Amino acid sequence: MENSKINILVTFDKNYINPFKVMIKSLAVTNSTCKFSIWLLHSAIADKDLNLLNEYCQSLGMEFNWIKVDRDYFKNAPISKRYPQEMYYRLLSPLLLPKTLDKIIYIDPDILVLNSILPLWNLKLKENVFAASSHSGPFDVVNGVNMVRLNNDHSYFNTGVILIDLKKARKIVKADDVFECVKKEDNLLLLPDQDVFNILYGSKTTEIDDAIWNFDAKNIPVYKLKSEGSLTIDWVMKNTVFLHFCGRGKPWKSKSAKSFNILYKHYMNLAGVLKCDDLK
Amino acid sequence: MENSKINILVTFDKNYINPFKVMIKSLAVTNSTCKFSIWLLHSAIADKDLNLLNEYCQSLGMEFNWIKVDRDYFKNAPISKRYPQEMYYRLLSPLLLPKTLDKIIYIDPDILVLNSILPLWNLKLKENVFAASSHSGPFDVVNGVNMVRLNNDHSYFNTGVILIDLKKARKIVKADDVFECVKKEDNLLLLPDQDVFNILYGSKTTEIDDAIWNFDAKNIPVYKLKSEGSLTIDWVMKNTVFLHFCGRGKPWKSKSAKSFNILYKHYMNLAGVLKCDDLK
Repeated sequence: MENSKINILVTFDKNYINPFKVMIKSLAVTNSTCKFSIWLLHSAIADKDLNLLNEYCQSLGMEFNWIKVDRDYFKNAPISKRYPQEMYYRLLSPLLLPKTLDKIIYIDPDILVLNSILPLWNLKLKENVFAASSHSGPFDVVNGVNMVRLNNDHSYFNTGVILIDLKKARKIVKADDVFECVKKEDNLLLLPDQDVFNILYGSKTTEIDDAIWNFDAKNIPVYKLKSEGSLTIDWVMKNTVFLHFCGRGKPWKSKSAKSFNILYKHYMNLAGVLKCDDLK
Repeated sequence: MENSKINILVTFDKNYINPFKVMIKSLAVTNSTCKFSIWLLHSAIADKDLNLLNEYCQSLGMEFNWIKVDRDYFKNAPISKRYPQEMYYRLLSPLLLPKTLDKIIYIDPDILVLNSILPLWNLKLKENVFAASSHSGPFDVVNGVNMVRLNNDHSYFNTGVILIDLKKARKIVKADDVFECVKKEDNLLLLPDQDVFNILYGSKTTEIDDAIWNFDAKNIPVYKLKSEGSLTIDWVMKNTVFLHFCGRGKPWKSKSAKSFNILYKHYMNLAGVLKCDDLK
C-alpha cells in the first residue's frame, strides 16, 4: 500500500545526534500506531555512530536509512564556513533521495513531536510542492520585515518542518538554481538555507498554521496575544504537533524548569541521553 | 515464571478514572518493556466504565482485573462520611486480593510514573512486609510532628506508593485490628487510612527514598534545600520514579504552565483525557 510508511527526512552533524534521538523518541511515543522510515542525509557521521543510530531506530520500530552525500555533487556550489555543504541537503533532498520515494516530511532535530503527524502527511498540496509554516512575531513585524528583505509576496517560511512532494519537487528543484541564488543574494542572506528556500520555492509552498505545525517554543506570549488569550497550555498540549525549540536557549543546555524544559528533559531521559550529577 | 507480570493495585472512585488513565499511560510509556497486571478494588464504578477501562488497559498491553468489594465485609467497620468503606481497601488488600498473588505495588492515581519501577518490584524486604516513603518537610518538621502525634518511633509514611509482600501481609493484617484502630484513635486521625497504616504497620515497613519513590511535586524547594542544591530538574527527570501530585492543587485542575503541569498535561493528552476550548 502506498504511503504505508511515513518518510521522515533529517540532516544533521554529530553535535545533533542526541537531539535527533529525543525528537524521534517523541515521534515514536506520540505516533505509536504509525510506521516510520527515517532518512538521514549527512557528510561525516562516523560509521560507529550510524550503526548505533540504526539500532536505536530499530528499537523504536523504525527503519533508518542513511545517505552519505558525495562531495563531488557540490563542486559548483559556494562552500565556505558560512555556507557549509550540509546547508544544501534539505533544499536538494528531492535530488539526493531515492526516486522511489514520493513524499517526505523534513523535521529539524530541535523539535518535540507531541501529536499525530498524519494530517500533515495526508495534506493535499494541490498545485503546490511544499507545505511549511511562518513564524509570525508580534503583530507580524518579523514576518513583514523578512517579506520586504527578500522581496517576497508570500509569508516568510520557517524551514524547521517541511512537507515535500518529492515527485513534483524533482521537476522544479535544480542544484544550479540553488548555488546561483546563494552567489547572487550573498549579501542579503541571514539564514542562508531558509532564505534560499523562501526566494526560490516560497511561491510553491502551502502555508500551514504554525501554532500546530511549527510552534516556536520561546514565543508563547506572542501566540497568547494573537489568540486573545485563548491559546492555553492545554491547547498547545492537545493540538500542537511540532514544538520547535528554535533560536538560542536550547532546552538541553538549560538548567531552568520553566516553560517546556521539563517536558524536553523527560524525553531526553526516555531517549537515554539525559546526564546529571549525583545528589550530595 | 514467577513475577513475570508486575502487579499494580489501585483503588479509586469514578472521579479518579481520568487520573488513573494518565498514571497508567505514563507507566506504559516509561516501563514499556514490562508486563503489568492492574488490580482495582472498588465499590461502585459502573460496568460500562469498567469495560471501557478494560479496553483502555488492553490497548496499553496491560491486563485489567477488577474486584467489587462486598459490603458485608465491612459490617463491623466504622463507616461514615469521614470513614468511607473505600478507605479500607488499600489497608485490607492482602485479604481482598486473590491468594495467588505474592506481591503488589499500590499506586495512587494522582501520580506520574517517570522511570523504571523494577528496582522497587525487586526490592528485598528482609523481615519487613511493606516498603514506603516518608514525605519529610523542611528540616523534617512535618515528619517529626506526625511521629509525635501518632507516638511512633519510625518515620511517618506516605501511603501513595506501597510495595506489599502479600504472602507476609496475609499473616499480619487483620480486618478487626484495622476497624478497632479507627474506633480507638478516632480523635487523632487526620488522614485516617494513612494514619492507621502508620500506627499498625509502620514498624513493618522499609523506608525508601521519597525523592525517588514518592516525590512530592509541590515541594521542589524543600528537596533542593535538603540536597544543598544538587537536586535539579535533570536529576528528578532521570531518577524520580513516582512523581506524586499530592495535596490540593491537582495539575488537571490547574491552568498554570509552571513546574510539572506541562508534563502532566502531555500525559493527559496521550491518555485521551485532555479537553480544551477552540482558539478564538
